[in-house]
Amino acid sequence: MTKNAFYAQSGGVTAVINASAAGLLAAIQQSHKIGQCFAGKDGLLGALREDLIDTSVESSATIENLLNTPGGAFGSCRYILRSYAEDPAAYHRLIEVFKAHDIGYFFYNGGNGSADTCEKISRISAELGYPIQAIHIPKTIDNDIVGTDCCPGFGSVAKYIATSTLETALDVQSMHSTSTKVYILEVMGRNAGWIAAAAGLAAANEEQAPHIILFPEVAFCQTTFLNAVKRCVQQYGYCYVVASEGVMDEQGQYLSAVAINHADGAAQLGGVAGYLADLVGQYLGYKHHWAVADYLQRAARHLASKTDLAQAFAVGKAAVEAAERGENGVMVNIVRTSNEPYRWHTETIGLAGIAVKERKLPAEYIRPDGYGITEACRAYLLPLIQGEDIGVYSNGLPHYAKLKQQLLPKKLPKFSI
Amino acid sequence: MTKNAFYAQSGGVTAVINASAAGLLAAIQQSHKIGQCFAGKDGLLGALREDLIDTSVESSATIENLLNTPGGAFGSCRYILRSYAEDPAAYHRLIEVFKAHDIGYFFYNGGNGSADTCEKISRISAELGYPIQAIHIPKTIDNDIVGTDCCPGFGSVAKYIATSTLETALDVQSMHSTSTKVYILEVMGRNAGWIAAAAGLAAANEEQAPHIILFPEVAFCQTTFLNAVKRCVQQYGYCYVVASEGVMDEQGQYLSAVAINHADGAAQLGGVAGYLADLVGQYLGYKHHWAVADYLQRAARHLASKTDLAQAFAVGKAAVEAAERGENGVMVNIVRTSNEPYRWHTETIGLAGIAVKERKLPAEYIRPDGYGITEACRAYLLPLIQGEDIGVYSNGLPHYAKLKQQLLPKKLPKFSI
Repeated sequence: MTKNAFYAQSGGVTAVINASAAGLLAAIQQSHKIGQCFAGKDGLLGALREDLIDTSVESSATIENLLNTPGGAFGSCRYILRSYAEDPAAYHRLIEVFKAHDIGYFFYNGGNGSADTCEKISRISAELGYPIQAIHIPKTIDNDIVGTDCCPGFGSVAKYIATSTLETALDVQSMHSTSTKVYILEVMGRNAGWIAAAAGLAAANEEQAPHIILFPEVAFCQTTFLNAVKRCVQQYGYCYVVASEGVMDEQGQYLSAVAINHADGAAQLGGVAGYLADLVGQYLGYKHHWAVADYLQRAARHLASKTDLAQAFAVGKAAVEAAERGENGVMVNIVRTSNEPYRWHTETIGLAGIAVKERKLPAEYIRPDGYGITEACRAYLLPLIQGEDIGVYSNGLPHYAKLKQQLLPKKLPKFSI
Repeated sequence: MTKNAFYAQSGGVTAVINASAAGLLAAIQQSHKIGQCFAGKDGLLGALREDLIDTSVESSATIENLLNTPGGAFGSCRYILRSYAEDPAAYHRLIEVFKAHDIGYFFYNGGNGSADTCEKISRISAELGYPIQAIHIPKTIDNDIVGTDCCPGFGSVAKYIATSTLETALDVQSMHSTSTKVYILEVMGRNAGWIAAAAGLAAANEEQAPHIILFPEVAFCQTTFLNAVKRCVQQYGYCYVVASEGVMDEQGQYLSAVAINHADGAAQLGGVAGYLADLVGQYLGYKHHWAVADYLQRAARHLASKTDLAQAFAVGKAAVEAAERGENGVMVNIVRTSNEPYRWHTETIGLAGIAVKERKLPAEYIRPDGYGITEACRAYLLPLIQGEDIGVYSNGLPHYAKLKQQLLPKKLPKFSI
């Protein structure tokens, strides 16, 4: 007897999370075991609120166009499902909603936090007598999920950051004789330096930008940094700095939270890029410019990695296949078997050991001086950015999937979250 | 008898300025009137320093690949040639260098400032008895040169900003129920709002992002702005703001130069985006995020407009043709003869009337509330972003032209600038 599936997107979105949805929906359509797929409007909140999007009313052209559409097409959320002891009502509500709509499969597309949620739902639904097969589909630009070689979403942001570094470095290089001498690009990655590391792909040697990468894994020392900037400017005429938003000083305080005092009494508070630019101006007097890529980097579907897109689609599809095989409490993971040529496949891995953990940039990927990446890091990263797929354009602009987002009729009373 | 040509890039670079160089060099190679082309290393400074790049040693493959290469391949500079009365030595030096290398043509690829320089060189070289045919090749992301329908460089930044707005708006739209409610994208354009206006292409109607565009042409009123943000969040769940770096308050002061006081005594100083985000947080309490596109936008060759690329190439080529016809003291301009289908061609226009002037966003392109663009503006902008050309990729990253930058042997003593 078939049961229906529930699919939800969780946490910060990526350029390719909808490709995972496309892979999942295509596989469910072929499935004899799984019936319909209902998607949570705004992630898990959709399940709690019984806001279930009926994916069967979407055309296959729309589903296919999810491959070209950044953001979370069904809505995502930042919602933490607490433990059963802390919030039993939430679990009972989820079971109630799943029962009411004959849902037996739970597909959760997210990062570390949602892996944990997925594990809880798998375990506690069984304890409560309505076992749900819960499968986690990895997604994060941060590349910090344990148990997978890489995370769908990361390859595209890596390609975006490496390409943008190359492009803007050419700009600075053209102008530095009379204009900007120090450039700072702020990238995401609060705790793990994978995105910052990707900028390192732009440099084929030490002369090339980025000259300095600041990782969250390496404590920031102002004196060493300023000396390095000065040396670069003297040697190459300019200095290109990539800074992770999560850079911390030697006391473990985020640079973005530190205020420095100007001569005129004003102070700077805000992003890391502005902070560093200010340091450079104040102590070295160089003309500087800075960019904060923010969501630009994680939404840039137009510059997606074809490899990343393929992996995002594959993990969605593989999740359905795992469910059909009867797997439960697992995450689909990506296994690399070769760098050159790059070879990978999906497997599944139990969630119990991997959820909530965080995979940081390993020490052997960081150059001894702390300001760059090693060849081992380059060998790891390079396959992930291979291939171009700009999506579909119409009248000069990207053409995205527009879902009908038709909700199922509600069967249950309202639930307050 | 043939004379050689001098070519220089000036001011802030663009994603397609090298396409103008490619058009010029290809045309000079075909020319019977013009001999070799020497490019100024770092712009006009190259002429003053006699740092002349010999373009004849570059392969045709490299010249062709200039079409795919952002930044200024020969180096650019921010250097203002003062009047003859103020700095006669500079003019005498230029003439001396031009004489020494048998240069009779001066091609200057830049914005308003360089149009003025070009005009001066044309006029004063004749007065000094060594007449140089000076032709200006328009280039600026700011789209603020008078006498041309549009400026090469602008179409690509317009496409980048419109696309990035679409992409990041999908991100915010997916997440706003539990995360970012107000998003701010800071774009370039110190005095003219053309780039900010291009973001308006992302919105097909009032519900869609960007909900609020802040132009340098419209004085910023904090109360009206905050009310508009609040209304958007209440109506659509989120509010997307695009702010030109050049937004000024009602007293004519740049917002980026204003400090606001926090409750904790700290103050914000820096970009417009951070300033506005701070206002939103302080007065409305909404969760916000912001990006500063900075050079990312003007270097983004990977997202160039095919139309813009074609125009950049065309103005380079047309400059050579104008020189061959004996024209002097002119700029190549782009003339639009039809919107649908978009039809354009190049002409030339005398520099005397257009140099130094600045073309701002006309009132009829700004929505009556000051926060958006009109249909007339959309009709003007849309043709300029048509067509995709991502350039050439190799191993996952763009493959750029690398010039040999071989300098001619110097014939003159050093000159101090």
